[in-house]
Amino acid sequence: MTKVPLPSWADTSPRRKILDFVARVTRPGGRDYVAPADRIAVFDNDGTLWVEHPLYAQGMFALDRAKHMAASHPELAAKPVFQAFVNQDMAGLAACGKQAVIELLLHLHAHATEEAFALEVATWLVEARHPRFDKPYTALAYQPMRELLAYLAANDFRNFIVTAGGVDVVRMFSEQTYGVPRERVIGSSGKTEFRLNGRRGEIRKLPELQSFNEYAEKPVNIALHIGRRPIVAFGNSDGDLAMLEYTASGPGRRLPMLLHHDDPEREYAYDKDTHVGKLDVALSTAVERGWTVVSMKDDWSRLFRDKAL
Amino acid sequence: MTKVPLPSWADTSPRRKILDFVARVTRPGGRDYVAPADRIAVFDNDGTLWVEHPLYAQGMFALDRAKHMAASHPELAAKPVFQAFVNQDMAGLAACGKQAVIELLLHLHAHATEEAFALEVATWLVEARHPRFDKPYTALAYQPMRELLAYLAANDFRNFIVTAGGVDVVRMFSEQTYGVPRERVIGSSGKTEFRLNGRRGEIRKLPELQSFNEYAEKPVNIALHIGRRPIVAFGNSDGDLAMLEYTASGPGRRLPMLLHHDDPEREYAYDKDTHVGKLDVALSTAVERGWTVVSMKDDWSRLFRDKAL
Repeated sequence: MTKVPLPSWADTSPRRKILDFVARVTRPGGRDYVAPADRIAVFDNDGTLWVEHPLYAQGMFALDRAKHMAASHPELAAKPVFQAFVNQDMAGLAACGKQAVIELLLHLHAHATEEAFALEVATWLVEARHPRFDKPYTALAYQPMRELLAYLAANDFRNFIVTAGGVDVVRMFSEQTYGVPRERVIGSSGKTEFRLNGRRGEIRKLPELQSFNEYAEKPVNIALHIGRRPIVAFGNSDGDLAMLEYTASGPGRRLPMLLHHDDPEREYAYDKDTHVGKLDVALSTAVERGWTVVSMKDDWSRLFRDKAL
Repeated sequence: MTKVPLPSWADTSPRRKILDFVARVTRPGGRDYVAPADRIAVFDNDGTLWVEHPLYAQGMFALDRAKHMAASHPELAAKPVFQAFVNQDMAGLAACGKQAVIELLLHLHAHATEEAFALEVATWLVEARHPRFDKPYTALAYQPMRELLAYLAANDFRNFIVTAGGVDVVRMFSEQTYGVPRERVIGSSGKTEFRLNGRRGEIRKLPELQSFNEYAEKPVNIALHIGRRPIVAFGNSDGDLAMLEYTASGPGRRLPMLLHHDDPEREYAYDKDTHVGKLDVALSTAVERGWTVVSMKDDWSRLFRDKAL
């Protein structure tokens, strides 16, 4: 294979560390060899695989759904997160946090069947546009990360998305956008129930949070869904720190990575002073431990597949 | 490929139905074609993939652990399930049910790290012997089912185990015994927590049930872990009925199957009058709907890989 791997990565330290790591763990008989069964890589989604500013795509989705459903759900109107929604108060919404957004969505979609909800998400993904880039959110997946996912998969890694976003939202684009099959998406989830509707067995959403997949819940859900400690982890915020600690502290060679948004020209610049993708303790921990920190500005030669962006 | 598929199946109706189903859903352009992404097959474990009588292997595991740990856990001694354990009262134990056994295990292993628990299970799987067959439990995986799993995998199906057994027990043998990777095992689970022990990130078990994966919880967990409705499902007890209903009532061609233990010579004969793998409503439903019912006696020419059995 003469194709150069990771073409959208600059020839800087992170790219070299990735290539070196993969070469070491896949070299049969080498000191750092890892059997294919154990080649597990986990990726945060918002801000790691695609753009998360000015607000998580799932927040935008909830905003659009809330507008549609405000009249029929007066009981939700008193909630601060709903007020922030209807007033399009982005700062207020960000301050409410990702969990409040997910809980609002749970209420908005209570009792929907999984098929009906999937259709709503699929429709929204086609129709919605990012306020700055004016493109569908899936066009804002980072090309360097798509290349990294493909490169790992070609080296017999199994890639998982471990996201605070709703599992049944992210699954609607993970296969097409990232090449990650639905069953390899681990996300926040609401409780559901199984009922017979005549002879038809249906899964319906209940208005109750089951798991908010952020912070320590990420490794907990990795253990539940995968049953193996990953050897590669990639995040961009404090919500990913536990997942990075879990990955980094296993035996043998490990690759914990953190994306730093420092590129206001091409995307955004933020770390500790934002409500959306706050990066503070995770960054100082990464520096202290020598984890790989990727500078969007310096380490990525290209951000998106669409060259017009 | 000249190899005859499913050699341990008799040339009776179930084998022909499986071959016909797979031929139809894999024929490109055919009316029943299913894209590889949607070829999901789910299998119960106890009594479907391996022997479950006289008691679920996990019950035997709990029995052995309870004996070891009785002295150090006096607070458990009052529980009926524990009494049944220490008295080796098999009928009483079976009457307590699978959930009580799993909860006892949760208490016995409270605060164990995932690695320590995995080691206990792995050791037990090597050392334990089935009381009738005097073989390790993994030697009691049904050869016809191993062939079916391999046949489906060769036809681009993704096989999942959906078991009431503990997810972190079944994962310890699923890869070697069934060719099913750990992340494709969905089972009962206890809550866990992630904590830093110095710099080492650890998952520890908590003495609290998270999900008892039986009855309606099976489709609920399939939706959570897979995010797709299966097109093939195989069970053997009433605990599998909801999973079979869920599978059977999706659009397009479906293959719901039920194993009937009617072979006292080679294995066991039981259905509605047992505490272990009770099969009653699921059998009448299968007959009524025309689902495939597999007779162990008539439809399997061979039960185990080990010909001495």
